Amino acid sequence: MLYLIGLGLGDVKDITVKGLEIVKKVDRVYLESYTSVLSAGKDELEEFYGRHIIVADRDLVEQGSDQILLDAVDKDVAFLVVGDPFGATTHADIVLRAQSANIKVEIVHNASIINAIACCGLQLYSFGEAVSIPYWTDTWKPDSFYEKIAANRKRGLHTLCLLDIQVKEPTPESLTKKIKEYQPPRFMTVGEAADQLLQIINRRGAGEMHQAYTKDTLCLGVARVGSATQKIVACPLQVMRNIDLGSPLHSLVIPGMMQILEFAYIKQFICK
Amino acid sequence: MLYLIGLGLGDVKDITVKGLEIVKKVDRVYLESYTSVLSAGKDELEEFYGRHIIVADRDLVEQGSDQILLDAVDKDVAFLVVGDPFGATTHADIVLRAQSANIKVEIVHNASIINAIACCGLQLYSFGEAVSIPYWTDTWKPDSFYEKIAANRKRGLHTLCLLDIQVKEPTPESLTKKIKEYQPPRFMTVGEAADQLLQIINRRGAGEMHQAYTKDTLCLGVARVGSATQKIVACPLQVMRNIDLGSPLHSLVIPGMMQILEFAYIKQFICK
Repeated sequence: MLYLIGLGLGDVKDITVKGLEIVKKVDRVYLESYTSVLSAGKDELEEFYGRHIIVADRDLVEQGSDQILLDAVDKDVAFLVVGDPFGATTHADIVLRAQSANIKVEIVHNASIINAIACCGLQLYSFGEAVSIPYWTDTWKPDSFYEKIAANRKRGLHTLCLLDIQVKEPTPESLTKKIKEYQPPRFMTVGEAADQLLQIINRRGAGEMHQAYTKDTLCLGVARVGSATQKIVACPLQVMRNIDLGSPLHSLVIPGMMQILEFAYIKQFICK
Repeated sequence: MLYLIGLGLGDVKDITVKGLEIVKKVDRVYLESYTSVLSAGKDELEEFYGRHIIVADRDLVEQGSDQILLDAVDKDVAFLVVGDPFGATTHADIVLRAQSANIKVEIVHNASIINAIACCGLQLYSFGEAVSIPYWTDTWKPDSFYEKIAANRKRGLHTLCLLDIQVKEPTPESLTKKIKEYQPPRFMTVGEAADQLLQIINRRGAGEMHQAYTKDTLCLGVARVGSATQKIVACPLQVMRNIDLGSPLHSLVIPGMMQILEFAYIKQFICK
């Protein structure tokens, strides 16, 4: 049996009662560690659960998740995921592979940034498609999310921008070597995201029919949603570039049309 | 102090450990009862928490929530909400009113249908704006959500249709009387929703530029997401009209463009 258990967003106590009961009784506990990050570390989780945890990094999940499934054939295995178990594509894939190996699967849902973002005061029903903003390199500066933001705003919808997480990325050099070397983990800040968004409009110029945003567009930066140190700031995009919200994870929201209640709520976060 | 605590979607054990600890220690516990419904009843919750629960219906929350806030001035009050606390507009309003009365507010997030819908195998990042489908009456048959579904599908995005919940609706007769009488609660089924959607295309005809869907569009019906009796069915819209998924809550999804992994996942739900 394979249990996919969402851990929620904040600390160790954001697991559900159902999830905790399962973690305490299964034979083996894996923690997915590369699509998101909990403010609590592995040690804190192990102490709270009273269980040993095997950290499942990208290599283990994408290439070697057969090991997890092999365990689940005759044992009860919990696979812990920050947020909701279906937050990342990878996990739907694991469920499918478990099913074709005749392994029973149970899902324990939890909060994810996709719904918890409503803490900023914007109504969930008024969000359009979410976008992911990747770290640029010197030679790779994709901006296809720009059109998605523009399409949302044209319809008056808000856009949640999920910011890049790079954990266990191989160094460029190691790709040609036999021994893998990894870059230090990094998490895109709202400042870095705002900077890339501003570079896009500078590059494209102001002549577009449906401009997604300008340097003066009011946007929201959120950090560590659901935790005790959660922070929310609302300011023009060009001010956001210099905002420091502290440790990860950060997300950025570009609002569409705001209703009166939404604006009344957001006022408390405006920084001048 | 006012705590807004999400209960998640399934049963009593879907509350988080953090949420449960708060419920056990506060002075008073209210349960919001009209924007959603948990499969567990009030009695079951009271037994699990070991606490007396005050059911807060629409009248209490929209007109009399001053009572809840008054309690929270000098006591610790928990306000329990099915799903995530920010799932309904009303709750952002309560937070604002608490803040202007200098009452501290803490939010405990949980899963809501907005993220848990990914259990059907469609990626959350490919959902557009969600829509609400209200019960029609003889004289009131709104269909403005049709354009929203069409706009999502034009962009290849999936649409989550939230289906109407009517709890403590006054009877038409009682509106003119002094004593309020209420209709029995009702929850729109996927069959009722499919029927209304089909009526809309019959009414509008097939000549539109960007048709939102046809009678043959593959759609997904989900019921009691996150509970042990969760059901998911995928079939053409006109077949969905006759599908019975049992007790509430139901939701309907109209997929946009499906990726290979999404289709592979959904295959298991197809009913012919």
